[in-house]
Amino acid sequence: MATQAAFAVRFPQLARPGRGHGQGQPATRVAVRGGRAAAAAARGVRCRAGGLIEPDGGRLVELVAPEEGGRRAALRREAAALPHRLRLGRVDTEWLHVLSEGWASPLRGFMRETEFLQALHFNAVRGADGSLVNMSVPIVLALDDAQRRAIQADGATTVALVDAHDRPVAVLSDIEIYKHNKEERIARTWGTTARGLPYVEEAITNAGDWLIGGDLEVIEPIKYNDGLDQYRLSPAQLREEFARRNADAVFAFQLRNPVHNGHALLMTDTRRRLLEMGYKNPVLLLHPLGGFTKADDVPLSVRMKQHEKVLEEGVLNPESTVVAIFPSPMHYAGPTEVQWHAKARINAGANFYIVGRDPAGMGHPTEKRDLYDADHGKKVLSMAPGLERLNILPFKVAAYDTKHNKMNFFDPSRKEDFLFISGTKMRSLAKNRESPPDGFMCPGGWKVLVEYYDSLAPPEGSSKPREAVAA
Amino acid sequence: MATQAAFAVRFPQLARPGRGHGQGQPATRVAVRGGRAAAAAARGVRCRAGGLIEPDGGRLVELVAPEEGGRRAALRREAAALPHRLRLGRVDTEWLHVLSEGWASPLRGFMRETEFLQALHFNAVRGADGSLVNMSVPIVLALDDAQRRAIQADGATTVALVDAHDRPVAVLSDIEIYKHNKEERIARTWGTTARGLPYVEEAITNAGDWLIGGDLEVIEPIKYNDGLDQYRLSPAQLREEFARRNADAVFAFQLRNPVHNGHALLMTDTRRRLLEMGYKNPVLLLHPLGGFTKADDVPLSVRMKQHEKVLEEGVLNPESTVVAIFPSPMHYAGPTEVQWHAKARINAGANFYIVGRDPAGMGHPTEKRDLYDADHGKKVLSMAPGLERLNILPFKVAAYDTKHNKMNFFDPSRKEDFLFISGTKMRSLAKNRESPPDGFMCPGGWKVLVEYYDSLAPPEGSSKPREAVAA
Repeated sequence: MATQAAFAVRFPQLARPGRGHGQGQPATRVAVRGGRAAAAAARGVRCRAGGLIEPDGGRLVELVAPEEGGRRAALRREAAALPHRLRLGRVDTEWLHVLSEGWASPLRGFMRETEFLQALHFNAVRGADGSLVNMSVPIVLALDDAQRRAIQADGATTVALVDAHDRPVAVLSDIEIYKHNKEERIARTWGTTARGLPYVEEAITNAGDWLIGGDLEVIEPIKYNDGLDQYRLSPAQLREEFARRNADAVFAFQLRNPVHNGHALLMTDTRRRLLEMGYKNPVLLLHPLGGFTKADDVPLSVRMKQHEKVLEEGVLNPESTVVAIFPSPMHYAGPTEVQWHAKARINAGANFYIVGRDPAGMGHPTEKRDLYDADHGKKVLSMAPGLERLNILPFKVAAYDTKHNKMNFFDPSRKEDFLFISGTKMRSLAKNRESPPDGFMCPGGWKVLVEYYDSLAPPEGSSKPREAVAA
Repeated sequence: MATQAAFAVRFPQLARPGRGHGQGQPATRVAVRGGRAAAAAARGVRCRAGGLIEPDGGRLVELVAPEEGGRRAALRREAAALPHRLRLGRVDTEWLHVLSEGWASPLRGFMRETEFLQALHFNAVRGADGSLVNMSVPIVLALDDAQRRAIQADGATTVALVDAHDRPVAVLSDIEIYKHNKEERIARTWGTTARGLPYVEEAITNAGDWLIGGDLEVIEPIKYNDGLDQYRLSPAQLREEFARRNADAVFAFQLRNPVHNGHALLMTDTRRRLLEMGYKNPVLLLHPLGGFTKADDVPLSVRMKQHEKVLEEGVLNPESTVVAIFPSPMHYAGPTEVQWHAKARINAGANFYIVGRDPAGMGHPTEKRDLYDADHGKKVLSMAPGLERLNILPFKVAAYDTKHNKMNFFDPSRKEDFLFISGTKMRSLAKNRESPPDGFMCPGGWKVLVEYYDSLAPPEGSSKPREAVAA
């Protein structure tokens, strides 16, 4: 399969079977979309995949029309004939991608009002069987008043969703239109209404005053054609990869910052701990977020190049690591959002989730403090309804150990030996083409970062004084 | 018992047994506090009370020291000797009252951080058995930085809570102090951070930047000595009253506005519907809120006088009605707060809850619109975790039927016949000593209202033009 082949080319190590009890097993591949379940069952993958944590709601929801049987062509014709078309923005498309692959299972489309209200008030929605499934961020589609009036005047129940070039992407049926109370949505999601929240400015402030929910059917898999699509593995593809490797534990690490050796240390140590707990083959899902991020975050393409270097240089063991892109946009909604990050990884087969200090946090947009208490994310995650099945692994703090010239777990008994290198400090070093302390990041990864900041620098160079390195 | 005697004097009808299968049963009374459970069991009340809905967590939490055995005196001595004393404000005392009687069961004191975070993020807290119990508003106690430092410098684990005259009221033990992030608390509770929210201005804005949680023990029952204490029945007292009446369904109605014949119609109709459903003796808990309300709400004393008139004049049937005061302060937090209002009534034995349009709502403090969507309260309540056992009865809209000159359920087929009389309109009529339409409110109840507004009027009278009556 094209996607998997490209994946294997970039990370050839990944095509080898895992080191656990699956050793020596042939790396059979199955069709991922369209007839996937049947194919998997026929080849016994379903049986092995059965060892992974169940998706929320018991079944992975996949909303892309199957390739065979003419459904795609029929859906495309249907969409083209629909009188009402809603154009998707960048973030809308990312959510469509998320929904289409089942990251938000059991959601079957953009939220209707009952789901929206439950997400806002309870961070969880009730499934068909009455049990609670975690769902902390609203996954919604906005429309303006003119669009609403036109749809409702017709009594339409189905609308086409189109891309920036007006090409049909999906059909939303059995629609429900309800009010987009932006202030309340923002307050309940972020715990603040201060101006300057990146996601709010990108996707809410100028969005319509109405929301439309319904059942989604997507014409074909979402592609970005940015050279990174081979990393965009769906939950079903990831589950198959974990099954193929005979993973008996999958631990997920959400990352939206440049990867450094502290992360690698943590992940290696997590695998060691899981082996000590008796797991035979814990596999890491190293899962950088690929959707919308704020302007000063390092872009996805740069981060992915760094991830390649980390594996190429052996900082992480490719045999027990799967690198893929999580297609969600970033809310920077701290304790609320970390639940979404964790929940989506359950759907991809992860039963362990590593949570760090201040996950999905950022500085308060208008006050000189962090927006969230650094410990709240971990606490809220560990108590969240619908996440009871997930094992939360608290992040051990790593910092640069000046005594041993490498990243090490922070040891409070000799705290003077440790140097905390913040994102701001890292950026400052890279911008100034300084070298980081030896062993902070793999050389190839650092080079990628420096090249990125070089590409941003003004032609004649900046005359600003260099920023301090010490934490 | 004094309290019950006073209750029976005010509403002598209430001492009669219900009309259901309990008819003719002697109106035995049991001691309410101190040895209550034992006494109840001995007299068979426990058995009858067993027919009522179970309190949240399975057991009603009562935190007032028992009268016998010297515990009150010992606790008073203990409190007097404690070096750290926190003075309770008005709203703090109301929450202490709420906690002490078990309205917030299974909470055993002001919230610790895990409870606070769960209330804010999930509107529910996990009980000891892992099940979710609804808890939508934070019940917390604030302290300032100097107090926090003093307590923590000592390593104190217990503090005394004292009233405005520095008299010990309770002891809080096994304390935990954590940050009071006011902005986040407000945003997540109200869905807005706009200035002018009454509860926020009363109890949050000027409160300390820290919160203290712990196990509460209250020295003696909270009394207000305002002539209304006899209406302040605890959940245990209410449960005994319902058991005594052999209620097989209890339907609660939360009210903070003047009671009128539309309410009475709704309540009478609800009882009729419950009888049709097969219940033999549905009892109404008519339960005006008695704690903090915003400045322009009609004061509790006036509302209680009106309730007396409604029963005296037979607008409501005293045999199937229990009038009592709900001691909670009012948040005006709409869909978030209505859950608290409902949950607290479960603890008092109610298994049906009547929910109206825009419950606990108010106008947006800075914009010209309602703060909440009028339907959200009902929707959120019906989906709330931990309230699955409660039957939600949607309020049927009543309005003044000009054709029949009485309050009637709104009939959209002849909507021109109906007159909606808002709180603002009612206030305007009463202020101007105009009569309301015949049958809108019982004459005694109206007189109470007019007298109240008279007492507020400036001595020489206002020359402002009279406000319109039509809706």
